[in-house]
Amino acid sequence: MSRSIFKFEKTIGIRSCAAVVGELEFKGPLKKYFDLSSQDSKFGMDTWEKAEAEMVRQSAEVAIKKAKLAANEIDLAFGGDLTNQCASTTFGIKEQYIPYLGLYGACSTFALSMGLAAMSIECGLAQTTLSVASSHFCSAERQYRFPLEYGCQRTPTAQTTVTGAGCVILEENDKAKIKISEFLPGIIVDAGITDANNMGAAMAPACADTLLRYFSQTTKKPEEFDAILSGDLGLEGKRILRELCSSAGLDLSDRYFDCGELIYDVNSQEVGAGGSGCGCSASVFSGYIASQLREGNMKDVLLIGTGALLNPNTVLQKETIPGVAHLVRIQKEKI
Amino acid sequence: MSRSIFKFEKTIGIRSCAAVVGELEFKGPLKKYFDLSSQDSKFGMDTWEKAEAEMVRQSAEVAIKKAKLAANEIDLAFGGDLTNQCASTTFGIKEQYIPYLGLYGACSTFALSMGLAAMSIECGLAQTTLSVASSHFCSAERQYRFPLEYGCQRTPTAQTTVTGAGCVILEENDKAKIKISEFLPGIIVDAGITDANNMGAAMAPACADTLLRYFSQTTKKPEEFDAILSGDLGLEGKRILRELCSSAGLDLSDRYFDCGELIYDVNSQEVGAGGSGCGCSASVFSGYIASQLREGNMKDVLLIGTGALLNPNTVLQKETIPGVAHLVRIQKEKI
Repeated sequence: MSRSIFKFEKTIGIRSCAAVVGELEFKGPLKKYFDLSSQDSKFGMDTWEKAEAEMVRQSAEVAIKKAKLAANEIDLAFGGDLTNQCASTTFGIKEQYIPYLGLYGACSTFALSMGLAAMSIECGLAQTTLSVASSHFCSAERQYRFPLEYGCQRTPTAQTTVTGAGCVILEENDKAKIKISEFLPGIIVDAGITDANNMGAAMAPACADTLLRYFSQTTKKPEEFDAILSGDLGLEGKRILRELCSSAGLDLSDRYFDCGELIYDVNSQEVGAGGSGCGCSASVFSGYIASQLREGNMKDVLLIGTGALLNPNTVLQKETIPGVAHLVRIQKEKI
Repeated sequence: MSRSIFKFEKTIGIRSCAAVVGELEFKGPLKKYFDLSSQDSKFGMDTWEKAEAEMVRQSAEVAIKKAKLAANEIDLAFGGDLTNQCASTTFGIKEQYIPYLGLYGACSTFALSMGLAAMSIECGLAQTTLSVASSHFCSAERQYRFPLEYGCQRTPTAQTTVTGAGCVILEENDKAKIKISEFLPGIIVDAGITDANNMGAAMAPACADTLLRYFSQTTKKPEEFDAILSGDLGLEGKRILRELCSSAGLDLSDRYFDCGELIYDVNSQEVGAGGSGCGCSASVFSGYIASQLREGNMKDVLLIGTGALLNPNTVLQKETIPGVAHLVRIQKEKI
């Protein structure tokens, strides 16, 4: 029983999704799946932090509108981001007057928010929920690394924080076609990585831990899913994850993808090892994957949100970088 | 239905609690209720941030030991703190290898972690959970305000961040004597406060919102509870909360207390307007209140965790300080 894959008994459907991204993401291969974008990195605001909050606000507004709901019909909102004290989410949703449970899971936040939202519906606390996560290249860069003006050169394993926000409205609905069917919470795994420019290596062991626990409890094989999506390991982490799983006897097959690789053209867009940040898996799922599920191109997807649990202080204090990875399964139609 | 008080159907009992505090807190009136304390503000570590993680580790270790459990018998841990990216909680529990869902609710985190843990038991995801929250005066002071060496003079409304951590183990247990019976998630309320030295004023409107929503949905009156505990408004916030509730027709009666007032002798300990920080309500509840429930001195308690959702950037960028307040009801024996 304990720590096993949690299978939702209620039919918890995705009622609507919305994704808002920045210019670089809008120039990438997933362009047509995003609802809104801005050529202005400040989204009309006077700071990057306020820009990130504005993306949160816009993504929630669009998702609520698509769901044909009013904000007061949402019972509970779950969300978080990378800015200190998750301020972007606070300021992005504070005008809506929706009960709000704040989360922190670094880049795993979006999967975490979907898992917990589904749990709140399963237990009857809510009927309709909102999950949102965001990140902004500029607010993250200056908080975690250097002032942008410094023009720091990046290492090959460094990922690019996605400027984006994604929002999903879940509801209890027996007739739902796309539903959250399973949730497997992640365990913190510390592989001893200390390089803050190699988050992929820090997160891959936690992702492997979650995937190995998942596949040890199910008869399904990786190739039976339409997509196994990590969010977001980047190219380096993806390579390490494949190796870790392979050495444990799990072949992730050609169905394994990483949101940080999907969102950019990694060959032409100068994004290092690919995308990262809470907004990466949030916008890739809410935009691209949700669309593939709606259109029937995908019917069974595992989303594994992967977070690197560091802050600039812990790095300066020579701590290692632990990772965590939360898994949610999303299926089209009934099994 | 929607947004109403959530009443747990399962009997979700408190199996054990532990509280770890610093020297100032151990010199206060609740001294005998705390499990561990240290005269060394660094708890044997080399930084204050690591000291806070050590308090988290100790409080979890003691609570697990008191519960006569092994860490691998805990299905799910919920926690968070005030340090950037909730790093104290990460580093405090990473050795335990327990599935971990990270939260951010500022000083409301402990009540949030209890509400969500109970929810995870209610829906069947977990049978046994751990909720933990912490804060440290020194890590908070230098992160939110000034370097300690600066010796900044404080305003009369400023609260003192509690050095402490509290941990509660919940379980599904029909025979439990002390149980979490209700949960009412808070809504972000922004009253336009901009003074970062007056968190009480920023949080009181959110606390009033939650209490007014609670009492509008129940026939119970404040005087029928043994304690209505805000955590942590301090003296100024407490005064404002009484006024806000009173003007809305709700008399909080003599059963209303604030954890930030209880933990110190506010007249002699030079703590300004009282205690604050995630560790305040966490240690006051896990130490003092849990003991009162066990001994039968209290039988029906409302804990309203109150959080001020700011960060140093949002203050510098002239944003207001929104608040949020999550309510959990804890009862002795069956109703």
